[in-house]
Order: sequence, then C-alpha cells, then structure tokens
Amino acid sequence: MTSFRFAVNVTPKPGILDPQGRAVEGSLGHLGIESVSGVRIGRRAELTVDAPDEATARSVVERLAGELLSNPLIEVYAIETIAAASSAVGIGAGED
Amino acid sequence: MTSFRFAVNVTPKPGILDPQGRAVEGSLGHLGIESVSGVRIGRRAELTVDAPDEATARSVVERLAGELLSNPLIEVYAIETIAAASSAVGIGAGED
Repeated sequence: MTSFRFAVNVTPKPGILDPQGRAVEGSLGHLGIESVSGVRIGRRAELTVDAPDEATARSVVERLAGELLSNPLIEVYAIETIAAASSAVGIGAGED
Repeated sequence: MTSFRFAVNVTPKPGILDPQGRAVEGSLGHLGIESVSGVRIGRRAELTVDAPDEATARSVVERLAGELLSNPLIEVYAIETIAAASSAVGIGAGED
C-alpha cells in the first residue's frame, strides 16, 4: 500500500450564481484594487488515499469528489495529485 | 494590459482544527470508503487580474490573498497561475 495525496478543487459552474465571489468583488473597492474581476469562490479538499497504485487511489477520489465533495448540478471539480503523502505533510507550514 | 488568471488555495494551517474535514471523514463510513485519511477542507478562489506583466498581477493577488481571502492566523495560502485569462474561461464547463 502506498499513500497518495490529492487535492479536489470544486468551483461553481460557469453561469451559476456565486454570492461569495460577488462579495469579494464588492470588497475590492475598500482595498483600492480595481484591476481584479471574474472572482469565483469554491472549495479545496486535500486528502490522503492508501491504495496499491495511483489509478486505484484516483478512482476513490473521483467517487468522493462526485458523491460527497461537490454538487454536480451546480459545481465542477478537478482532481490534482499533490505528492506521495509522506512528503506532502507540512507544505506551506513554514511560518508556524 | 494583459489579463492573468490565478487561483488562490487557502487551507487550514497544520495543527489547526478543521471541523469540515472531520465531517467529511465521518461520512466516509457511510460510503464504504476506508482508505481515505487526512482530509483538510479549504477554499479556492479564482480571479482575473489586468496588469502590464505577470509580476505586477501576482503582487495584487498576494495582497488580496493575505488581506481578504485568508486569515493568516489560522490559514495558509498558495497562489497558482491558471493561464492567460481569455483562454481559461470555460475550462471544465464541458457538461453544461
């Protein structure tokens, strides 16, 4: 068994209303930022799967992404391999 | 001016409690999935910046990520270049 670490990026489908994105756009003026547009806010799930190979691990993630992590009616997801799990732990934690 | 499209991935710092991640882990049993662990749930923001060059665009995103999109006390963020904006529109929209 090997551990694989994946990220699932879930974003609102194009055309679907995104109130959080609108809220961020509404706040840009307060920060004096005018060059930003097209803000879409979604979710990002990171998880570790133990499986004999990456294809098996990815099929588990596909199932999770479609059944638990996203709503296929209004969201799309993309799966990303981060790294073998053991080496991924602590990424971005430098400033603790 | 060129349009650059970025993603900002915001995740809970290691060691910080992640109730959403715990909730997902608690649901895995109902789906009959036992091989998944270390679930962390964060946010993903995608946005377009108009700037003369990518370095300028990225500095705007850095500021937004630190001041508006994340809480530096409990979250870390990573910035990702998606593509020049015009070609990124519609990615993942195939099934509309």
